[in-house]
Amino acid sequence: MLNKNMETFLCCDSDYEEAGVVLFGAPFDSTTSYRPGTRFGSAAIRRESYGLESFSPYQERDLLDCRIFDSGDIELPFGNPTRALSMIEERAATILQDGKLPFLTGGEHLVTLGAFSAVYDRYPDVHILHFDAHADLRQEYLGSELSHACVLRRCWEKTGDGRIHQFGIRSGDRDEFLWGKDHVETHRFTLHTLEETVARLGDVPVYLTVDLDVLDPSVFPGTGTPEPGGVSFDDLRRAVTLVCSRAHVVGCDVNELSPPYDPSGISTAAACKIVREMLLALPQSRG
Amino acid sequence: MLNKNMETFLCCDSDYEEAGVVLFGAPFDSTTSYRPGTRFGSAAIRRESYGLESFSPYQERDLLDCRIFDSGDIELPFGNPTRALSMIEERAATILQDGKLPFLTGGEHLVTLGAFSAVYDRYPDVHILHFDAHADLRQEYLGSELSHACVLRRCWEKTGDGRIHQFGIRSGDRDEFLWGKDHVETHRFTLHTLEETVARLGDVPVYLTVDLDVLDPSVFPGTGTPEPGGVSFDDLRRAVTLVCSRAHVVGCDVNELSPPYDPSGISTAAACKIVREMLLALPQSRG
Amino acid sequence: MLNKNMETFLCCDSDYEEAGVVLFGAPFDSTTSYRPGTRFGSAAIRRESYGLESFSPYQERDLLDCRIFDSGDIELPFGNPTRALSMIEERAATILQDGKLPFLTGGEHLVTLGAFSAVYDRYPDVHILHFDAHADLRQEYLGSELSHACVLRRCWEKTGDGRIHQFGIRSGDRDEFLWGKDHVETHRFTLHTLEETVARLGDVPVYLTVDLDVLDPSVFPGTGTPEPGGVSFDDLRRAVTLVCSRAHVVGCDVNELSPPYDPSGISTAAACKIVREMLLALPQSRG
Amino acid sequence: MLNKNMETFLCCDSDYEEAGVVLFGAPFDSTTSYRPGTRFGSAAIRRESYGLESFSPYQERDLLDCRIFDSGDIELPFGNPTRALSMIEERAATILQDGKLPFLTGGEHLVTLGAFSAVYDRYPDVHILHFDAHADLRQEYLGSELSHACVLRRCWEKTGDGRIHQFGIRSGDRDEFLWGKDHVETHRFTLHTLEETVARLGDVPVYLTVDLDVLDPSVFPGTGTPEPGGVSFDDLRRAVTLVCSRAHVVGCDVNELSPPYDPSGISTAAACKIVREMLLALPQSRG
Amino acid sequence: MLNKNMETFLCCDSDYEEAGVVLFGAPFDSTTSYRPGTRFGSAAIRRESYGLESFSPYQERDLLDCRIFDSGDIELPFGNPTRALSMIEERAATILQDGKLPFLTGGEHLVTLGAFSAVYDRYPDVHILHFDAHADLRQEYLGSELSHACVLRRCWEKTGDGRIHQFGIRSGDRDEFLWGKDHVETHRFTLHTLEETVARLGDVPVYLTVDLDVLDPSVFPGTGTPEPGGVSFDDLRRAVTLVCSRAHVVGCDVNELSPPYDPSGISTAAACKIVREMLLALPQSRG
Amino acid sequence: MLNKNMETFLCCDSDYEEAGVVLFGAPFDSTTSYRPGTRFGSAAIRRESYGLESFSPYQERDLLDCRIFDSGDIELPFGNPTRALSMIEERAATILQDGKLPFLTGGEHLVTLGAFSAVYDRYPDVHILHFDAHADLRQEYLGSELSHACVLRRCWEKTGDGRIHQFGIRSGDRDEFLWGKDHVETHRFTLHTLEETVARLGDVPVYLTVDLDVLDPSVFPGTGTPEPGGVSFDDLRRAVTLVCSRAHVVGCDVNELSPPYDPSGISTAAACKIVREMLLALPQSRG
Repeated sequence: MLNKNMETFLCCDSDYEEAGVVLFGAPFDSTTSYRPGTRFGSAAIRRESYGLESFSPYQERDLLDCRIFDSGDIELPFGNPTRALSMIEERAATILQDGKLPFLTGGEHLVTLGAFSAVYDRYPDVHILHFDAHADLRQEYLGSELSHACVLRRCWEKTGDGRIHQFGIRSGDRDEFLWGKDHVETHRFTLHTLEETVARLGDVPVYLTVDLDVLDPSVFPGTGTPEPGGVSFDDLRRAVTLVCSRAHVVGCDVNELSPPYDPSGISTAAACKIVREMLLALPQSRG
Repeated sequence: MLNKNMETFLCCDSDYEEAGVVLFGAPFDSTTSYRPGTRFGSAAIRRESYGLESFSPYQERDLLDCRIFDSGDIELPFGNPTRALSMIEERAATILQDGKLPFLTGGEHLVTLGAFSAVYDRYPDVHILHFDAHADLRQEYLGSELSHACVLRRCWEKTGDGRIHQFGIRSGDRDEFLWGKDHVETHRFTLHTLEETVARLGDVPVYLTVDLDVLDPSVFPGTGTPEPGGVSFDDLRRAVTLVCSRAHVVGCDVNELSPPYDPSGISTAAACKIVREMLLALPQSRG
Repeated sequence: MLNKNMETFLCCDSDYEEAGVVLFGAPFDSTTSYRPGTRFGSAAIRRESYGLESFSPYQERDLLDCRIFDSGDIELPFGNPTRALSMIEERAATILQDGKLPFLTGGEHLVTLGAFSAVYDRYPDVHILHFDAHADLRQEYLGSELSHACVLRRCWEKTGDGRIHQFGIRSGDRDEFLWGKDHVETHRFTLHTLEETVARLGDVPVYLTVDLDVLDPSVFPGTGTPEPGGVSFDDLRRAVTLVCSRAHVVGCDVNELSPPYDPSGISTAAACKIVREMLLALPQSRG
Repeated sequence: MLNKNMETFLCCDSDYEEAGVVLFGAPFDSTTSYRPGTRFGSAAIRRESYGLESFSPYQERDLLDCRIFDSGDIELPFGNPTRALSMIEERAATILQDGKLPFLTGGEHLVTLGAFSAVYDRYPDVHILHFDAHADLRQEYLGSELSHACVLRRCWEKTGDGRIHQFGIRSGDRDEFLWGKDHVETHRFTLHTLEETVARLGDVPVYLTVDLDVLDPSVFPGTGTPEPGGVSFDDLRRAVTLVCSRAHVVGCDVNELSPPYDPSGISTAAACKIVREMLLALPQSRG
Repeated sequence: MLNKNMETFLCCDSDYEEAGVVLFGAPFDSTTSYRPGTRFGSAAIRRESYGLESFSPYQERDLLDCRIFDSGDIELPFGNPTRALSMIEERAATILQDGKLPFLTGGEHLVTLGAFSAVYDRYPDVHILHFDAHADLRQEYLGSELSHACVLRRCWEKTGDGRIHQFGIRSGDRDEFLWGKDHVETHRFTLHTLEETVARLGDVPVYLTVDLDVLDPSVFPGTGTPEPGGVSFDDLRRAVTLVCSRAHVVGCDVNELSPPYDPSGISTAAACKIVREMLLALPQSRG
Repeated sequence: MLNKNMETFLCCDSDYEEAGVVLFGAPFDSTTSYRPGTRFGSAAIRRESYGLESFSPYQERDLLDCRIFDSGDIELPFGNPTRALSMIEERAATILQDGKLPFLTGGEHLVTLGAFSAVYDRYPDVHILHFDAHADLRQEYLGSELSHACVLRRCWEKTGDGRIHQFGIRSGDRDEFLWGKDHVETHRFTLHTLEETVARLGDVPVYLTVDLDVLDPSVFPGTGTPEPGGVSFDDLRRAVTLVCSRAHVVGCDVNELSPPYDPSGISTAAACKIVREMLLALPQSRG
């Protein structure tokens, strides 16, 4: 008798009960204002992960030794951000309740709000580490408060001042930067100052949100709003490894891969490798 | 002194006051469930119309002789269908109020609901001629009633039974076809029976909505949900000419062009030519 | 607790024991001489089937009422046709042994030889209905006898004369056509003469092999060797429906979709719809 | 000792002295007004001809039996139409002087003027058979008389009235159609009336110019100005076979393939097959 | 009453009279020898500028505070470089005459000659700062003196020795480099030595011409002749900011963006951002 | 009388007898496990070399002064690695026997085994310098010992321990890295330690194999398995120049360019320039 056809991120095929990390995808891009397509991101990461090795020569670790469960993509209603966010929050809450770490792949950056809400409920003292080209701090955008361009502002409404730490920011309107000075910690252009922040945070619970457009468009063309002048792949690889291995990460996400703008596949390959390095570095994924 | 840089559909540069037909674009695709991208459709039609001649050898007429105003695209809020539809309805209402014919280019098919609502307010006895691959008659889709897959059902809630005439339909779920039998007139697969319907309608006001995916994907690959087995370009060209010249058209739209899926540009070229033939056939566009 | 992430062709999620038809994919293209890429065909068909409706307005049937199991793709060794064919044959033999119909999706056309071998073992009187642009009757090609260009010749070595019926053939070298006159039945250019052949075959077991490049490249650009001058989608749709509903089909395959050459996705959409229509027409897929 | 690396159209590798037909390419597109790229057409036709069989099942003839020499592409100066046309004319004149038939592949349609000038010098009573979507009869275009949009007008300046026979024309400005009525014979939209014209021409020398955009864009998307509503591949295949086998062809060309707009390669495949069928039908290519 | 549909570079919508900088586009590429397509560059820069923010976090300035007029693209005759250059020169002369700074977007690099001629007439002591991968110093190219490969040589014929300063040059034939040693100042491979040159120039009027292929192809793939080994985006961003804010710039251009070779849009995004940074740095654009 | 149409890498048109270096292509990719397409690599390098200058400003040398013969591509049987490798070995042996240096362009990396076998027969003390993202040291892959992923392991079976020197390696499975520690010299991630190795090798004969995926995917997207985190173009350019000018190179290859994944052409441009720099640096190519 033949088996059913399973689809997971490379080697993430533990039983749910034994897994310490649970992947889930949020294929949503309805508020994307420039070039839609990130809805295809989570499936592409899962599918193209088979072009990777499970072993990382950077960390000398192997996904074959990890206990990770990939729960697939949530089926989300396009055009209805409120309901989509509830569904994402619910999935993250289930995972947290079962004592596992939720690892979300987007979708547009707005999906972070769903996962972060569940994390915030469980860890009210959580800080956010935010890697991005864009500040995402607007009060509203094109008449909507639930937009990718407002997502960190919505998170701030939960955390209050001083608990959002942004890195790599190189785009935003004047008001975002002005407002940000009083309420969040913005490190422009690079990730160089990350190590000091991670050290300072110590054992505080951390939610890590990686908008992959923090990468330079040469490395990561496949995204909704490419912003020239970004960080290198090795910079981001080192940064996520640092955070996942040294900070007390209690939830995380990787978002804004848009496969339709990635004709050569290099953006998806970069996304897969960042996800692999994060999974290998998170203590929760090891036995 | 230099002039400002104007952008219109080919030759549609009349003064607003003198125009009999007014073009407007609705770059919206937030409820698209399969492959987004129709938000770029209206701008592509405007831009690529310059690959066309203004003269039609089919009708022996020339846009140079027409009085048409292109009012450009409305700036719509992504992720908020309710508000987007209000804005479209408002623009159509203004045009109707000024005694001109509103000609909408999408965008996804949902945008029809905005323009049709304005037309219905003015012409409560209006019928709909609907060319499409899909029935679009669902009560709801993915939990939403404001979805491209429900747009004709929403229109029916205004018109009631027997006033929607569909042609070319070759896809839908079982329930749509079942429901449709009792409430609308569905001509499957082809446009062959159109002439009889147009004759029967006589002077009744007609809203014409053209989902370009009624065309075969070989002719029109650039759309969200390509459905093999469609009609030919000449079939559609003849059909829209017939309706625009013989029926009493009081509003119309052309939608579902998705330029990201049109690498060779043939879909945009087909859309432009259908728009040209409609404009040339509408009595309102002539002096 | 969350469920595992299953991937099947649209609605083909029966339990194996209850299924009458079993889908399996053979992602192999190592002997492709012109443009490789068909290895991605079976996965693309599975993935993009979600752009389809499960209901067919042509047959008035619904996949929701069918009992089909999708067993996924076989992991095949690239560069080793002999071993790949054994693995395909083994999978088909298991399915036949369990009293179910094997339905193979390619991959290049060579994969047919694996599935047909298993079918031939069980039904030694089987005939082949072959839809293709190319005769595929060479004794060898580029020094190899296991090549896509030789696959029907290899099948003939099993069946002997008069049991291969080709339709739509519009390309081959002079020797293939000459040899073919004495050994197989070749209907050039169209599928028009199919009905008579199906009637003549009566209850004889039939293996149906559909090389999708029988379609015109306008309808089906995404293939290794596009041959202008092919049949229309409706011609092929009607032909496969005829064979699957009226002949005694005991095995079948659909092959030669090459997604890298299908930038707009229309070829994959056509392939999915042909597979759907075949599944709906096969009596084995119904309860 | 190794041989030099030759590149020719499929099997067109006769010695020059023995050849009856000589191919040459004119990779020029500097006057293209809409989308450039036809400069890559002649090389693409040569290169991709290896995806074809040398045998035609339509004509039951084989290029292996033909005597054709492919002299490669002329290196033309971009931005200088006058000089480019002289160079093309010179090459054609050499071929004619050696008693062979010149067969030009473009490039944009303007290149016809170079080849036709040489033919006209040798055959002052020559007629032109012209297959095209566009009338190409303007006196000037964007301020230039040497433009692709004027090429048949320039030819007419040599031949005078009544010796240009156009087929398939479906685009032009009003003045071109008006002027054309008095000076050339224009058959709109289709090739249906060709047979009668060929019969009427009898033994008169004929120059055949095929602008491949006469094909429908579904069949031939890869061109500078796609015009929906064109002829089918089989229509064009039959038409060129008819002309080349029954008329007294003394020179010919095939032009306007633009590979950058042909992502799936079907346009190049169509162009190659049209060239093959023409070569097989021309009596000069046989021994 | 509805407004006309204006199209400008992001926020460049001042009245002409009040503007200090005037943008204009030259969509010309007829002398391009390798891969045409830069004719679409100026329109793409205008259109895609809406993916940018008007605020620069590098300069802490905002286009909302600037006075810039975008006069759109000139309609140029393809295939006629002499006439195209006159039209460009004329536009630049008008702008200069009105006391404003002309800012040209190409188009191929040859268009620089038109704008520079007008600038030279007004500022006979002008120097040229030239960022490029290619020396562009040939006396002629493919038989023509008006070619992109000769454009700085033509400029030198006006300025004479020592007034052209090239940076980033990494390609040219042997003769160009030899000739260049005696007549221009060539800084190979990088922009590192720019600061010293700008300091040395002091208040001398400067024309800045930026061939965007000076960027590495990873950052800027969308160009006619990609040359591996170029400068980074940040290097170029800093360089143009330096020149525009510290040198006495009296005219400038940005050229060689070829959208058909930019499938992911990152080249256009880079071009837009370079234009934004230049506009923000130029003192003429502020009140 | 017209000449035959020759096709060579830029300026590599010496007579065979006079040439010191002989280029040949191996268009083979049948064992590629992820994304096929490298079969088109050698032809693309030849064709696109015409976008390059023959002069290198890095080395101040010109291909016009070199004596190189391009013998074109071998016609290889797809699906039969054993036979393909024999044919490659035979071509390389002929070139070596004639006292010339064989320079192979792939194709997938497996082709190296053919050329290296011939070199090893003549120079049994040869060492290998290997630039690659992948270790390629597996005993078998997907059941086959003749796979691109095993090619250096097969070479090691000839050379034994200590004679393979790998640089830039950033991907492999755990066992490859473990095995490699005892048998080969692996320099991870960069080429920085190359100079010391070249110095140490002195006059020992060296075979240089360049898998172009050692480059970062931003620079070289067009390859089968893009691995983020690679070396820059200038790093590789300097490395190959160093090896070709200072080591005793007796054979070399450049492989793994896959044009279908290179939509903007930058990968092919990079490959061409690496080949040019190698040819210019090899003493055998000069008189």
